[in-house]
Amino acid sequence: MYREQIKVLDCTIRDGGLVNRHDFSHEFVGKCYAGASAAGVDYFEIGYKNSRELFPDPSYGPWKFCSDDDIRRATAGVENGAKVSVMADVGRVNMNDIKPASESPFHMVRVASYVKGVDKAIAMANTFHDMGYETCINLMAISRDQGPELDEAFEQCEKEAKAQVIYLVDSFGSMYQEDIKTMVARARKHIKTKELGFHGHNNQQLAFSNTIEAIMHGVNYLDATVYGMGRAAGNCTLELLLGFLKNPKFDIRPILDLVSQQFIPLRKEHEWGYIIPHMIVGQLNMHPQDAIDVRKGTDSENYRAFWERMVSGVLD
Amino acid sequence: MYREQIKVLDCTIRDGGLVNRHDFSHEFVGKCYAGASAAGVDYFEIGYKNSRELFPDPSYGPWKFCSDDDIRRATAGVENGAKVSVMADVGRVNMNDIKPASESPFHMVRVASYVKGVDKAIAMANTFHDMGYETCINLMAISRDQGPELDEAFEQCEKEAKAQVIYLVDSFGSMYQEDIKTMVARARKHIKTKELGFHGHNNQQLAFSNTIEAIMHGVNYLDATVYGMGRAAGNCTLELLLGFLKNPKFDIRPILDLVSQQFIPLRKEHEWGYIIPHMIVGQLNMHPQDAIDVRKGTDSENYRAFWERMVSGVLD
Repeated sequence: MYREQIKVLDCTIRDGGLVNRHDFSHEFVGKCYAGASAAGVDYFEIGYKNSRELFPDPSYGPWKFCSDDDIRRATAGVENGAKVSVMADVGRVNMNDIKPASESPFHMVRVASYVKGVDKAIAMANTFHDMGYETCINLMAISRDQGPELDEAFEQCEKEAKAQVIYLVDSFGSMYQEDIKTMVARARKHIKTKELGFHGHNNQQLAFSNTIEAIMHGVNYLDATVYGMGRAAGNCTLELLLGFLKNPKFDIRPILDLVSQQFIPLRKEHEWGYIIPHMIVGQLNMHPQDAIDVRKGTDSENYRAFWERMVSGVLD
Repeated sequence: MYREQIKVLDCTIRDGGLVNRHDFSHEFVGKCYAGASAAGVDYFEIGYKNSRELFPDPSYGPWKFCSDDDIRRATAGVENGAKVSVMADVGRVNMNDIKPASESPFHMVRVASYVKGVDKAIAMANTFHDMGYETCINLMAISRDQGPELDEAFEQCEKEAKAQVIYLVDSFGSMYQEDIKTMVARARKHIKTKELGFHGHNNQQLAFSNTIEAIMHGVNYLDATVYGMGRAAGNCTLELLLGFLKNPKFDIRPILDLVSQQFIPLRKEHEWGYIIPHMIVGQLNMHPQDAIDVRKGTDSENYRAFWERMVSGVLD
């Protein structure tokens, strides 16, 4: 597959930060940034731009906050590197901390929002846009929020947002390829002047194939993570995606080095990937929190009991 | 997805046997058979029907040979269980060992063949058919053997084989969903009177999505394995497939029990699944042997070196 407009965004540190409380060392993030840049990745999402006052717990690592100094320190020394992205949640950013893009070490801001919160997300993204940033709106949990409000959200994104990309986010890892086809067509009925993006979760081992499906239907902004690291079941793996995309600007080898040297050891400390409770909540189109909780408890391998509990929850 | 004609074949012990030299205990196989039967699986492939004289190495377990006695012992005590299948390779079966189906503990024989060997495979399958067995022909490595000989093989299967199913086998885990769509259409140009089947490998995390794609295009015989256990990267996982199929005859819970109690411990002894060298040979459309070998050596985590070596092999 080769299409010049395709952009790859490596969100390993941002989504993977949900696994380890955003506590990667600057050295680790620096290696990931250098590797992604050498691989030809377009954007590197380094974390969340949360206000420290809202999260005083000192156990959070730096990538929950992404101070300008931390970003500069981790990305120093890479020439012509990937553009740096941060994710922002409505109500969690201290806008007084944000400098204009021309004075800032990051280039893009992605505002994540459930469908019902899209008004605030658009307003926030537009504020960043007016400060000179590239912006995206990431519509989360679209496998769940599929009523008429979803069409309204698409329509608002088209008409009101200055964002260059609207992302479809399969937060629960619940969608099949037919769902992707249908959802992209639905979004395209409303969104005519912006790019679409896709961010998958791998609960059912479908994040990569759903990303391919999105590409086939014209989606050009693609999220992936090294070795699939990300919350719960993780994401589309970057090494699979780069192997599929035939644009000669991509080079899989620096990503293979990162997996070898950084992520195989890290996977021994933190779990993500194909884990049965995460598979179950994906099948049932549910938020991953119950699966995350059960994996921390003493009954983490009693899959039948978890399945029974989740199914009864669905029926409640 | 619900289509009455769909049949699920659990080949955990057969394909998984390639991981552990077919050395499962009778008790383990019995639990798998009981679980698959309780889950509503249609066929249970218990191993290969090889001649012991050809493989005298005593380290091979019983499921490389599948004596009638071993099959009876492992499947005893299950009422109305799944039909038992065995796999046969051309030239490796001592036909003097084979009793007529009416006196045998297995119901189906699948003959696996590369495209170029299809004449012999058809002859062998027809012999089994005439002894009263259900038969299938499994065409291996169809991601590689795509010249005109593939159309001829499909044509021969249609005209000469008595088999009820012709399987398309993505042996290298190299195919994308578009390839599945194209391949099923190509097979259907020739094969009008038989069912089609699909057996995927999971090198690129696409075995499940490719199985879904095959279903969407009318394929009715589907292979899967518990927790994806199978050679190298393994297969489409049975628990994902049963979650997708909405036929109420299927019950995922006995398979969840097998994963909990049997396959989580087994995975600590033997490796299969998403492993980077297997991902690499899948991307490059190559046989898994080099990846299997490198995983046994001292340089098993040097993915860049393996990639370089494989790519130079492709170019040779």
